[in-house]
Amino acid sequence: LVNTFSAYGKAVEVRWAGAMEAAKYGALAVLVRSMTGSLDDYPHTGSMGYDSSGRKIPAFALSTVASELLSKTLESDPTSSVMLESDCRMLPDADSYNVIGELRGRSPERGILLAGGHLDSWDLGEGAHDDGAGCVQAIEAVRLFKLCQYRPMHTIRAVMFMNEENGLRGGKAYAEAAEKEQYPHRYAIESDRGGFVPQGFSFDVRSASEMAVFQGMRPYFSPYHSDYFFIGGGGSDIAPLKNTGTICIGLVPDAQRYFVHHHAATDVLESVDPRELSMGAAAMAAMLYLIDQTP
Amino acid sequence: LVNTFSAYGKAVEVRWAGAMEAAKYGALAVLVRSMTGSLDDYPHTGSMGYDSSGRKIPAFALSTVASELLSKTLESDPTSSVMLESDCRMLPDADSYNVIGELRGRSPERGILLAGGHLDSWDLGEGAHDDGAGCVQAIEAVRLFKLCQYRPMHTIRAVMFMNEENGLRGGKAYAEAAEKEQYPHRYAIESDRGGFVPQGFSFDVRSASEMAVFQGMRPYFSPYHSDYFFIGGGGSDIAPLKNTGTICIGLVPDAQRYFVHHHAATDVLESVDPRELSMGAAAMAAMLYLIDQTP
Repeated sequence: LVNTFSAYGKAVEVRWAGAMEAAKYGALAVLVRSMTGSLDDYPHTGSMGYDSSGRKIPAFALSTVASELLSKTLESDPTSSVMLESDCRMLPDADSYNVIGELRGRSPERGILLAGGHLDSWDLGEGAHDDGAGCVQAIEAVRLFKLCQYRPMHTIRAVMFMNEENGLRGGKAYAEAAEKEQYPHRYAIESDRGGFVPQGFSFDVRSASEMAVFQGMRPYFSPYHSDYFFIGGGGSDIAPLKNTGTICIGLVPDAQRYFVHHHAATDVLESVDPRELSMGAAAMAAMLYLIDQTP
Repeated sequence: LVNTFSAYGKAVEVRWAGAMEAAKYGALAVLVRSMTGSLDDYPHTGSMGYDSSGRKIPAFALSTVASELLSKTLESDPTSSVMLESDCRMLPDADSYNVIGELRGRSPERGILLAGGHLDSWDLGEGAHDDGAGCVQAIEAVRLFKLCQYRPMHTIRAVMFMNEENGLRGGKAYAEAAEKEQYPHRYAIESDRGGFVPQGFSFDVRSASEMAVFQGMRPYFSPYHSDYFFIGGGGSDIAPLKNTGTICIGLVPDAQRYFVHHHAATDVLESVDPRELSMGAAAMAAMLYLIDQTP
């Protein structure tokens, strides 16, 4: 599939449910071929689930090259065996926190515009694309406003959410706290699809008429090839805000290379192109500006 | 500038004419800050010119990091000196060749469709993006036709031009030979902007009405975000074919990272993403197919 997120969405069920399904057939463990289009030596990890009633068998992430080798080995000798060793275990929960920065609006009663990403990441790499990029872009969007000496009408918040990868508790806690705030969250933009060249935005709206105001902004993004606007999810961390009436928006970058690095040891700073990252931040800032300017 | 080719086009005059201009003021040599948006340690080379009447002084490519250091050093101590040493020299011309592959058409009298790139590259790297990518994509486009068992009406030629970087003699010789061929070259597509995600095509046509037939093809490319079609140059190597009436087309990839590697030591295979490269080849094949299908 050209859309790598669609490909991931359809394939990831194997990782999520593999252990559950294999356990039913008496498996002792599962080896999960990594969810990447790239043929390399890097295992890609990610969340998986257990049936409350079934046996909990261990799951191991295997690189695509190792998976190919394993398949070929089993073809030539179906009696081959694999030795597995792991020291993975669940540790008790520990406190962690969302991190929030704010640029106060001139008319704070107009509400809050949120730009965000998530702080946590899988342990194999640094989480540079997933989602250091989103965190940095949210901060950069606010910095760009200050640089331009633009004082927004709305209060702009840069929010780095905690625990996206493993329970979404930062996003849920944030939405709960937001309900008790004096001013509502009008719009929230999340960047959680990598620090690549921006292509546009997805809007979590219910109808074409709700989209009309955003479609009117497209010409401002066309010169930058960032005018691919469509109805779709905004982002995991901001999704809980929907219950309070917030319109959620996702920054949509080109994602052809995203799953090369996703949840793997190569998701490090060196894999992020500074110019591509900056362009995403600028797109996010431009969207916040246009929303701020819209009565 | 968001369009890195426009930025390059406006900045490169400094490299091209720097030695000429500096010589007028008595300079012994010029140091040229590399034509890249990236701050790194890689000098980027490229063509430069001499006035037939002026002194020919040497020009040295300097990395952006080294250029920043030099500027700072000169600010703090204007009497600083630089030692330059080079063993560069012009060697006599030697024979080299264009390389051509052909898939014969079912109706060869309808003419030739050309897909091409150039074989030569600057010596610091491997020329993987500039222009190994274009060569591989031209071959791949023909391979895709064979894979689909599609026998085109037109003859399809994959042409790897020689000497793009230093005189364009491959392109000129090819156009001269093409004039003497039995069947005309109807359309030529060149890929010489790197092996990145395709965004669309530039069409070397003279009017909006000539563009109309191509604009009609846009919906086929929209699902792949490759439908950015505009009037512009096709490519250096194929440009000489214009005199014979060939319509020249350029494959236009996203070029945000192109000048990171352009004419530098990092323009190597590892800098090319196989998926992005393949998408460009597929876009090129799709364009050839649509042209072949158009009466």
